[in-house]
Amino acid sequence: MVVTSGRAAPPGGTPRTVDWRDGRVRIIDQTALPERLVVVEIATIDELVDAIRRLAVRGAPALGVAGAFGIALAARSSVADLDAAAAALIGARPTAVNLAWGVRRALALRAEGPAAIEAEAMSILEEQVASDRAIGAYGADLLRGAGRVLTHCNAGGLATVERGTALSVVRALHERGDLEEVLVCETRPLLQGARLTAWELARHGVPFRIIVDAAAAGLILGGGVDAVVVGADRIAANGDVANKVGTLAHALAAARAGIPFVVAAPRSTIDPATPSGAAIRIEHRAADEVLRIGGRQVAPAGSGALNPAFDVTPADLVTAVVTERGVVRPPFEGWQ
Amino acid sequence: MVVTSGRAAPPGGTPRTVDWRDGRVRIIDQTALPERLVVVEIATIDELVDAIRRLAVRGAPALGVAGAFGIALAARSSVADLDAAAAALIGARPTAVNLAWGVRRALALRAEGPAAIEAEAMSILEEQVASDRAIGAYGADLLRGAGRVLTHCNAGGLATVERGTALSVVRALHERGDLEEVLVCETRPLLQGARLTAWELARHGVPFRIIVDAAAAGLILGGGVDAVVVGADRIAANGDVANKVGTLAHALAAARAGIPFVVAAPRSTIDPATPSGAAIRIEHRAADEVLRIGGRQVAPAGSGALNPAFDVTPADLVTAVVTERGVVRPPFEGWQ
Repeated sequence: MVVTSGRAAPPGGTPRTVDWRDGRVRIIDQTALPERLVVVEIATIDELVDAIRRLAVRGAPALGVAGAFGIALAARSSVADLDAAAAALIGARPTAVNLAWGVRRALALRAEGPAAIEAEAMSILEEQVASDRAIGAYGADLLRGAGRVLTHCNAGGLATVERGTALSVVRALHERGDLEEVLVCETRPLLQGARLTAWELARHGVPFRIIVDAAAAGLILGGGVDAVVVGADRIAANGDVANKVGTLAHALAAARAGIPFVVAAPRSTIDPATPSGAAIRIEHRAADEVLRIGGRQVAPAGSGALNPAFDVTPADLVTAVVTERGVVRPPFEGWQ
Repeated sequence: MVVTSGRAAPPGGTPRTVDWRDGRVRIIDQTALPERLVVVEIATIDELVDAIRRLAVRGAPALGVAGAFGIALAARSSVADLDAAAAALIGARPTAVNLAWGVRRALALRAEGPAAIEAEAMSILEEQVASDRAIGAYGADLLRGAGRVLTHCNAGGLATVERGTALSVVRALHERGDLEEVLVCETRPLLQGARLTAWELARHGVPFRIIVDAAAAGLILGGGVDAVVVGADRIAANGDVANKVGTLAHALAAARAGIPFVVAAPRSTIDPATPSGAAIRIEHRAADEVLRIGGRQVAPAGSGALNPAFDVTPADLVTAVVTERGVVRPPFEGWQ
């Protein structure tokens, strides 16, 4: 494993979140952000499994690309048992649907040899790059003139390959001169907004300010926000949206204020097998994420916590879903 | 200044937030919570001004009592110029209306001497204790059978003298066997929920779990909460409620879920001079409260933040306001 490290501050020239060069996988190590931009060069399946496990690479689309490159690595290293490599990769994040999907798509080319597998993995990467760009363009068309955009968590390039989903819309608005400012919700408990989204926006010269998640509703109802744009972890067939915990409150506030609440996500996020949000099981994470901040206990010793990782925004609060194929508005019927 | 310190854990026997003994003001130093319960004994105006400035004592009703005791201190120490003492106290937190009110109420007895001033300050304290109890009883009547109650920030005894406002309702429900659990919003950026409310509830044996503020809406719409009870910083004549930032999102979620959203506050919080929430200027605090947590920078260097301390919940989202005189339901007309 080779590590290239640099200061995170200077804009421009950001490497891809996941990439392939000279037979190795290169990833931005997201655990080092926002303090340092560290690119890790990965040569073995074990190293990649470790990187996935410790969330050095995260985000559904990014994991799909990483999984496919993992199979390319294994094939290139003449690993006899590609199935074992596939199992190890998928087992690194068993609930990440895209990871398994990327692994299997690359694995399907095994009969054609390492070069074909590598080409397939590169196709997945390029499709992702194109998908991000398309989402950004459609979203910026939809939100023409929206000056102040609020977003939650990190639906940026760090979750995909280059431009992200919600942040691709934001960047397209910025490039067209339509954007005044992004309000970045810090996104407790893990602070992906304050750490990752802020880092991406700073890097690309997009003006932003960070807010605590609880400040969003007051700013929205007070007339300080023109649109809310978020990503999605899963979209049910009826348009209900599961996303990082906190998203729902922004949707409720946007509906009351009469501003657009837009979900930006690739079509692969829409799950025809999930009829509505009621069928989505909400993952609960460790209490310590809430009780401790930066390694320090903030609550009284012995306190408990409830830590749902996601919430579900009902479809009637969603103004539109923007995918790589265009804008879908309610009612969300026959769209899968 | 004499400091008595002890471990915060064992329940029962909690001293009053502000009290008077042997010619000295005694306060719980809230900056030491939840790690340690420290009671500070204050003998001079300078010490009291310092305690108010560094938020060792906070909360509108508590500051009113502290201000009155400050004048009692000054009179007892034969301070020639009570006006200077009053000005120093009020200047310690110029925007705290109750502080000035408590100071002036004690000062009105100056012609009758130190004993009369001391007695007046004790009356203010006892009125506050009785007010808290009445709010708790009325609130628990209103919310009979509400098992899971969500609250925000600290509207507890630490903001008043003994039982608080919203937490007085919670404690009354608990004492009547009606309470299953309190969901305590951590209340970023200053974490008054995770630090102070959790400490109070633990101390009084009330079951609770802490959540990030952003988790409230999902839990409420998911059927995990029976009622929301919060305090208030100011209530406009039309029933709009200014309270700690984050309150509004809980009100929006409660309205959608059809559960009660109850504001518990003394009548002095209702301001006839403020016709509606639109007339309330929202205080913005330092960006560092958002960008740093526990002294550590979490956002990229150079990031900005927007940090409103309060938000305004429109009256139509308020199920009832509970004061020491009873329950007021909408429309909030002619009630001041």
